[in-house]
Amino acid sequence: MSGTLYGLGVGPGDPELVTLKVLRTLRDLPVIAYPAPEDGASFARSLVASWLSPAQTEIAIRVPMTRSVAPAQAVYDRAALEIAGHLEAGRDVGVLCQGDPFFYGSFIQIFERLSPRFPTQVVPGVSSLMACAAAAGSPLAMRDEILTILPATLGEPALEKRLKQAETAAIMKLGRNLRKVRRVLKRLRRADHATYVEHASLDSQKVLALDAVDPASAPYFSMVLVRRGSKGGR
Amino acid sequence: MSGTLYGLGVGPGDPELVTLKVLRTLRDLPVIAYPAPEDGASFARSLVASWLSPAQTEIAIRVPMTRSVAPAQAVYDRAALEIAGHLEAGRDVGVLCQGDPFFYGSFIQIFERLSPRFPTQVVPGVSSLMACAAAAGSPLAMRDEILTILPATLGEPALEKRLKQAETAAIMKLGRNLRKVRRVLKRLRRADHATYVEHASLDSQKVLALDAVDPASAPYFSMVLVRRGSKGGR
Repeated sequence: MSGTLYGLGVGPGDPELVTLKVLRTLRDLPVIAYPAPEDGASFARSLVASWLSPAQTEIAIRVPMTRSVAPAQAVYDRAALEIAGHLEAGRDVGVLCQGDPFFYGSFIQIFERLSPRFPTQVVPGVSSLMACAAAAGSPLAMRDEILTILPATLGEPALEKRLKQAETAAIMKLGRNLRKVRRVLKRLRRADHATYVEHASLDSQKVLALDAVDPASAPYFSMVLVRRGSKGGR
Repeated sequence: MSGTLYGLGVGPGDPELVTLKVLRTLRDLPVIAYPAPEDGASFARSLVASWLSPAQTEIAIRVPMTRSVAPAQAVYDRAALEIAGHLEAGRDVGVLCQGDPFFYGSFIQIFERLSPRFPTQVVPGVSSLMACAAAAGSPLAMRDEILTILPATLGEPALEKRLKQAETAAIMKLGRNLRKVRRVLKRLRRADHATYVEHASLDSQKVLALDAVDPASAPYFSMVLVRRGSKGGR
């Protein structure tokens, strides 16, 4: 009998935004894996650190922060191999994931490699999308509104085309894409309806008008929320 | 000093998908409000019932399930008035909300009426969107994918137009709109890429191919997830 692979959503950053289900599931897992930088501590692990036991085996998936995809893919390949070894030996493995595992989550890398071979379960988490709306103090969507989620990593023409069609929108994964996002929103005359949120739910949380953001400082885990424009607003 | 209005996301239905933050916040609140049917128990309340105390004042917002909007609006008007009375007297009030308060949440009705007058905070919750993806065992969005959230309550032409533009999509609030959604997805030849999820995270959870659903039985809290079609799939 092989073990089960668990994707565990640990929420957007506030350790109190972890669910009871993640904590209960964690307690029974012999092996825990999590993404981490090449040097230093894992943010996902820090959110549940006080609930871990020294008896648990830990696997840090140290993902290099480079523009090229190949080095990260090799790291996920090796991590999947190590996790598969535990699963084959009948040990359940939990993979911690910031936010929600299936919403642009790093867990998907492990899921794609292992879910065809092993039983897999996902415990959903509070997403950064919802945490950013709470931080901004403004509803994401209500009634008959359509909400479009766009990664800022899209090319500028694709981003512009899709934002033109969208009513309410959330633009994720800002980082070095902030200048591009701002240019597009200005061209569409929607920059005044855009709110920037960084580190939602953490003490370092910032909520700013898009024009007030220093584009050199925007982290990857930041977001722009674009409200319905002149069509009616809220 | 007036009290603070709290919107508390209690998650999609599994009582274990409540966050520590909701439970800690709840404990300190003298007044708790929640949506409920005209007769019977509140589902949102049931998710945290064991954490409530008899000393807390409870306000059931009994929302009639009718097609017309006016009766529900009158109920929310009265509830907002009652809640405002507590806030004016300096008592904090928590409003429980299934899923996430700002993602098509019933809390928005109270938020719109009271947030201009009282300090307001939202504790984000695990949304049905993420719970449905976990139930379906399939990622919502990854890498450069765009995700569009559509309420099934949209008119048929609008729904068709937006689904044609969308890659990955989630169609919420199905209920009596299921036949319409199925017609549209069949015309767009995307019905084979659609998964129906009902009561995600509950014991009564169902995951079905869209064609296998009895349209007379789909509850309002059900969803269709549409994967990227022939453009590439996953």
